[in-house]
Amino acid sequence: MQMRAVIFDGAGGTEVIRLGEVPKPAVAPGQVRVRVHAAALNRADLMQRRGRYPAPPGWPSQIPGLEFAGEVEAVYRDDATRWTPGDRVMGLVGGGGQAEYVVVGEDELIPAPEGMALSDAAAIPESFLTAYDALVVRARLREGERLLIHAAGSGLGTAAAQLGRRIGAAMLGTSRSAAKLARAAVFGLSGIDTSEGGFRDAVHEPVDVILDVLGGAAFRDNLELLAPGGRLLLLGLLAGSSAETDLQLILRKRLEVIGTVMRPRGAGERARLAREFTDAVVPLFEHGVLVPVVDRVLPVEDVRQGHEALEANDTFGKIVLSWESDD
Amino acid sequence: MQMRAVIFDGAGGTEVIRLGEVPKPAVAPGQVRVRVHAAALNRADLMQRRGRYPAPPGWPSQIPGLEFAGEVEAVYRDDATRWTPGDRVMGLVGGGGQAEYVVVGEDELIPAPEGMALSDAAAIPESFLTAYDALVVRARLREGERLLIHAAGSGLGTAAAQLGRRIGAAMLGTSRSAAKLARAAVFGLSGIDTSEGGFRDAVHEPVDVILDVLGGAAFRDNLELLAPGGRLLLLGLLAGSSAETDLQLILRKRLEVIGTVMRPRGAGERARLAREFTDAVVPLFEHGVLVPVVDRVLPVEDVRQGHEALEANDTFGKIVLSWESDD
Repeated sequence: MQMRAVIFDGAGGTEVIRLGEVPKPAVAPGQVRVRVHAAALNRADLMQRRGRYPAPPGWPSQIPGLEFAGEVEAVYRDDATRWTPGDRVMGLVGGGGQAEYVVVGEDELIPAPEGMALSDAAAIPESFLTAYDALVVRARLREGERLLIHAAGSGLGTAAAQLGRRIGAAMLGTSRSAAKLARAAVFGLSGIDTSEGGFRDAVHEPVDVILDVLGGAAFRDNLELLAPGGRLLLLGLLAGSSAETDLQLILRKRLEVIGTVMRPRGAGERARLAREFTDAVVPLFEHGVLVPVVDRVLPVEDVRQGHEALEANDTFGKIVLSWESDD
Repeated sequence: MQMRAVIFDGAGGTEVIRLGEVPKPAVAPGQVRVRVHAAALNRADLMQRRGRYPAPPGWPSQIPGLEFAGEVEAVYRDDATRWTPGDRVMGLVGGGGQAEYVVVGEDELIPAPEGMALSDAAAIPESFLTAYDALVVRARLREGERLLIHAAGSGLGTAAAQLGRRIGAAMLGTSRSAAKLARAAVFGLSGIDTSEGGFRDAVHEPVDVILDVLGGAAFRDNLELLAPGGRLLLLGLLAGSSAETDLQLILRKRLEVIGTVMRPRGAGERARLAREFTDAVVPLFEHGVLVPVVDRVLPVEDVRQGHEALEANDTFGKIVLSWESDD
């Protein structure tokens, strides 16, 4: 049995992307197979396409895609499982999400919020699991604390802002786009436009938690802006990976610098997070407290156009690829 | 009413140290006054003497001393308190410990282990509270993990080694003294002699937790030695405060860099830690699982000699100053 999938033929520009046919993956014990309705693009896909972010061991190396939403199509033989064919689900994978079918450990699946289109649900897993893990699990963000979010118009940024608002944090966000900041303001975030300079002088009071995807020169500014007991979550290095560090700041203010990426995590850790997220966060989508932010939904045939839009940095929220004309 | 105390007259060498008379401190609501029997020296006292580590606000600025053991002498009027004059206690303070009397919040006191001389108990608070807070509370060290302890012959190092052994960690320790490493081996620690070079090439497997008082150039080596999910506890900067950092290591391995110092902590945090330590750690001293490591006990009149010995770095464990000829 064959299925269609987005395939990277080598490393390079968008010319290496094609839609092709690959074998439909088999279901092993403890796994379920999901028919994917929609799968969002991520910046990690661009890095993978350029050959700079290979899939971790155990995941498809040529098929990109870190998240998906769809319907359970098959479970392993007579395995006892909580899933039934037809269940609406979503999830995070180490690769292979941008295909007609994906095989996932049953404990790593998350029910799609009731009443939500699967093309919206596909924009949830990477952003909201990452933001939840970073802000709630790792940074232990508390009501009344001050939160600074870099790249506030990104999928991660808008997810973090919604979770931060729910927790009751006072929020600041940076972006090089005034238009994105204006849109992010709806989530209760005060904007800092960094199109013409840094952010440090625009932050007038120390902050308790920083969600950073920049690294590089921003690292030092982040350490300086943190209040005693502050936590810096490092989730990306868009501004570079080398930083001159004043360790006195870390010691004297008793800071925590926490590196966190989702993709290399093992099954146990993915399952724990999926369970916690199902209980604590999925209901918030059903009650309208949280919303996935979708920039646009493209038919999967337009995947190259999706890469170009993300590369041009003119998106607000997620670009979702849809396999279903009727979804 | 006057009392005797160690006093720093300005900043400089040991010539600024004298024993003098100062007013006996009054007891405010929620506080108790302790007659100090013994108080240990710390490297922080040397830094304070040189004018580089002033006492935090609210603590005596001229009287050094971060830890003490003694007997409760007075409680505030008729306050309900769990302490009674004569109770044997120990504790951590932001300053003023090297005096005949010290006034402490009642919740910050810890009972001295039963059957232990107060001159031994005086060597417990700073080392063991710091090591407990770092390894157990902050780093969440687990059985079977690999722990690297820098400056393994110090009071903190020997306390950390004992706690690490109790938790069931595999332990490595560095020191520039082969003699100190030989003595530290009794706590189950494999020694790395750094008298002639670095430690990185001597560590052949990644480690999960590092207790570091060095900083500086050791920072990069520490990050490289950590396993995925590893935690680096930064407690001192003996090797300098500036470090070129490869943020990729922090991000990719999902590391945590945690700065931690005791001295600036507020009353609430001190009280929480004292309570937890009383329940979880004090019994281990009473059962002989943990032992304070005392290099020597000096009469307080020899405080200058104590500074010189600590400065010469030829101590193993704590130098304790005793106010009591009969203790």
